[in-house]
Amino acid sequence: MNKPLFIKIKEIDNVAIVVNNNGLPKGTIFDNGLQLIEDVPQGHKVALNDINQGQAIVRYGETIGYAKRDIKQGSWINEAVTQMPTAPELHELEIATKKVTPLPPLEGYTFEGYRNKDGSVGTRNILGITMSVNCVSGVVEYVAKIIERDLLPKYPNVDGVVPLTHLYGCGVAIDAPAAIVPIRSIHNLAKNPNFGGEIMVISLGCEKLQPERLLKGTHDTIPIKLANDDLVTLQDEHGFKAMVDHILRVAEKHLQRLNQRKRETVPASELIVGMQCGGSDAFSGVTSNPSVGFASDLLVRCGATVMFSEVTEVRDGIHLLTPRAIDEEVGKALIREMQWYDEYLAAGKVDRSANTTPGNKKGGLNNIVEKAMGSIAKSGTSPIVEVLSPGQRPTKKGLIFAATPASDFVCGAQQVASGITLQVFTTGRGTPYGLAMVPVIKMSSRNIVAEQWFDLIDISAGDIALGKATIEDIGWRLFHLILDVASGRKQPWSDHWKLYNPLAIFNPAPVT
Amino acid sequence: MNKPLFIKIKEIDNVAIVVNNNGLPKGTIFDNGLQLIEDVPQGHKVALNDINQGQAIVRYGETIGYAKRDIKQGSWINEAVTQMPTAPELHELEIATKKVTPLPPLEGYTFEGYRNKDGSVGTRNILGITMSVNCVSGVVEYVAKIIERDLLPKYPNVDGVVPLTHLYGCGVAIDAPAAIVPIRSIHNLAKNPNFGGEIMVISLGCEKLQPERLLKGTHDTIPIKLANDDLVTLQDEHGFKAMVDHILRVAEKHLQRLNQRKRETVPASELIVGMQCGGSDAFSGVTSNPSVGFASDLLVRCGATVMFSEVTEVRDGIHLLTPRAIDEEVGKALIREMQWYDEYLAAGKVDRSANTTPGNKKGGLNNIVEKAMGSIAKSGTSPIVEVLSPGQRPTKKGLIFAATPASDFVCGAQQVASGITLQVFTTGRGTPYGLAMVPVIKMSSRNIVAEQWFDLIDISAGDIALGKATIEDIGWRLFHLILDVASGRKQPWSDHWKLYNPLAIFNPAPVT
Ligand SMILES: [Ca+2]
Ligand SMILES: [Ca+2]
Ligand SMILES: [Ca+2]
Ligand SMILES: [Ca+2]
Ligand SMILES: [Ca+2]
Repeated sequence: MNKPLFIKIKEIDNVAIVVNNNGLPKGTIFDNGLQLIEDVPQGHKVALNDINQGQAIVRYGETIGYAKRDIKQGSWINEAVTQMPTAPELHELEIATKKVTPLPPLEGYTFEGYRNKDGSVGTRNILGITMSVNCVSGVVEYVAKIIERDLLPKYPNVDGVVPLTHLYGCGVAIDAPAAIVPIRSIHNLAKNPNFGGEIMVISLGCEKLQPERLLKGTHDTIPIKLANDDLVTLQDEHGFKAMVDHILRVAEKHLQRLNQRKRETVPASELIVGMQCGGSDAFSGVTSNPSVGFASDLLVRCGATVMFSEVTEVRDGIHLLTPRAIDEEVGKALIREMQWYDEYLAAGKVDRSANTTPGNKKGGLNNIVEKAMGSIAKSGTSPIVEVLSPGQRPTKKGLIFAATPASDFVCGAQQVASGITLQVFTTGRGTPYGLAMVPVIKMSSRNIVAEQWFDLIDISAGDIALGKATIEDIGWRLFHLILDVASGRKQPWSDHWKLYNPLAIFNPAPVT
Repeated sequence: MNKPLFIKIKEIDNVAIVVNNNGLPKGTIFDNGLQLIEDVPQGHKVALNDINQGQAIVRYGETIGYAKRDIKQGSWINEAVTQMPTAPELHELEIATKKVTPLPPLEGYTFEGYRNKDGSVGTRNILGITMSVNCVSGVVEYVAKIIERDLLPKYPNVDGVVPLTHLYGCGVAIDAPAAIVPIRSIHNLAKNPNFGGEIMVISLGCEKLQPERLLKGTHDTIPIKLANDDLVTLQDEHGFKAMVDHILRVAEKHLQRLNQRKRETVPASELIVGMQCGGSDAFSGVTSNPSVGFASDLLVRCGATVMFSEVTEVRDGIHLLTPRAIDEEVGKALIREMQWYDEYLAAGKVDRSANTTPGNKKGGLNNIVEKAMGSIAKSGTSPIVEVLSPGQRPTKKGLIFAATPASDFVCGAQQVASGITLQVFTTGRGTPYGLAMVPVIKMSSRNIVAEQWFDLIDISAGDIALGKATIEDIGWRLFHLILDVASGRKQPWSDHWKLYNPLAIFNPAPVT
């Protein structure tokens, strides 16, 4: 048997998690003399001392729950004995009080990217096909297959063609207040730097989201100027074959231009990296997410842009984030996004506790508070310089909170709409996640998952739990992998298999 | 120039619509002496007499609006001069008051269908792959391509493989009251008769919608008994290639059984046909939808099941439907579904007026009231024998109201979940709609659309507007086409091109 190990995070914690695969049996004695008085599964918590009924259960130095009954030292602390705390009140938060001494700038790091006319830099060279309405998606998917088969071989510098499918555009309450989210998102999606500014739009003709409205966008977007011949309206075409031919003609024009793009060496400050976690376990907050946080700090030190997201996983740690806001305005924007989501969930008659999954719980996460503490570790230590509503594009570099649902597919789509050119996705339990528009680096929180899914997981942070690597080690390793993948020197597994999620744009407004 | 024509529907109507392509110019004199005092576009309304400010504008014998100002005979009646009426109050409706003398039964009509063990009859022979969560969709799509390429040629009696993709299963508020809709729908989707009872489920492992929960379903579903080896859990697999191989093995077992299925002659009473309209114009309610209504009556007379749907398009005609309820219970269920949708829309700060599209308006439909009158024509004249909440399966034969959004994609997915084996889709403006699970017959309201989209539209009802055919003629033609397509004797255009919508399951609950 391996040596019994636990991980305690902060000095004041009164619980720690069991490291060993398959957990540890009752009677196990750790090096420090602590003895388990019941079996504890891997990743689950053990009481480091007696905890009286009503007393706080502390992990990450934060109260993640209250004891429902007296808990003896060496007990397994699971959901049954844990009372979830209420969410932090939004009106009594400290804002911009934590003056972080900026870490020294990191100079000299570069990657090989595609410089666009608007100054942005892509990591891939992709033809994105925008659609104003879901009704055209069958046709666009049909044409995309022909492009892949017949046209892409003629344009070897182009990495692929991606129909920007969504379920929006008609049969929706387009004047609902929340409709700003999908409209803005589909608009900004077209501008993702990986599409090189080569925008073409397929429209049906009678849809609610008329191309003019999509291209104009919302009050907070920059209108898209589309060449007249880059809009194909299916209702103007003489039959299906004519539609296909017309779309192919327009696509080929863009492919010719995309094919002229060449990678060039650019500073790492041109990167826009999204951070996400999914299928989290108790190790996520100890190994993978802190490593991502460290890499995030490195990127910020390079002058790059880093987004973290997932409102329902940030909500219970908001009191740790508002102090890190760069100023009052940013702090208030953070609170505004939390408030919006509280109301969105309340309208559906649920609250933030709806987030945790059976897998999270099996992995040792008792509730959303504990999950949130692990999730926000992805944000590192940098000041938060900007807050984006879902689908907005950043105007600053540095650490940015991009408000999105925590749902993996929706967060992914929304970060792409916000302009990320690479995503880092950490997972505890494992998920075959991938995005067609930007490369995704998948990091597991434990080695066992990386070993089992050897052809899906790109990097493991598991050595941290075993004491074989530090957060800094893995953080640097991830940072270099980000530069390699951004440059096209390394291909993550999702791109190897072309294993991609359907694009799930967030529509918080009703369908009609 | 063609002879000027208008269509007046009911004797008491004070408006009629212009039939001629491209509309009619000011000065046009009709056979009855009516003279246009301004240009009127095709499908748009002309005032048959002077209508004073505040007076009702009547079409279909119903008030579709009130005159905002005095309107002279021969004027164009557009949105600008029309005040929309309020929706019918739900607490003062007549229920089951209209005792319809049943039309005589139609005997002897049959089709060639696939009889299932549970007694249901399919019109196609398809392997449907159920997923408990969106996270597995990339893998399932990957495998489906391999099945198509390598396995289907070995099983020539199988028509295809369809990944039952959805955006549900995790990152959702699974205990929200409205979560019953997607859970029930994904559950019942697996039971669609076209899949022959050959159910296999792909799960990730850590998702909220655990396979047990999906298979158990909701209080109103019949639990699915799944063989142990028909569940593949990706987190249990040793890497991606192992996942693919495992899914292929399970798929092949089902393909072998599906390949044994043979079409046999069954009575038309075994049909379950869904009716939907999309991209409607002013002709939809005059030509295509009444023809669908006539065919619906024919099907009901054969003892078959017919579903109509689209709550927001029924809401303003609900006072015409509750009297047609077979009994008090069905009438109350109709009202319950309207009420649910009123509240759903109100939670999103909109109302039923959010339905009409720019295309509807361009096509002559001023508002949702006028659109609704045309939409409910699809229901024919039969009594309404049952009402289904979204995704429920019918327990009766005859005319059924299956509550769904009007959104084409969502209505399609929900009707498939409710068990339709064929859909009739009428369109005014034209849309390249198609479903992978059931054949879709697309009918246009005008000949010009069928001529322009000659390789997409299966049948036109346009001759009705020209006086060259009656509603009965086209209704019978559609009825025979339904039997031919159900039997596999005729292939609709969507199947010819394999032009299919992404499956859009209705999730009225929040994402998290
Ligand atoms: Ca997460
Ligand atoms: Ca996530
Ligand atoms: Ca990619
Ligand atoms: Ca409709
Ligand atoms: Ca519809």
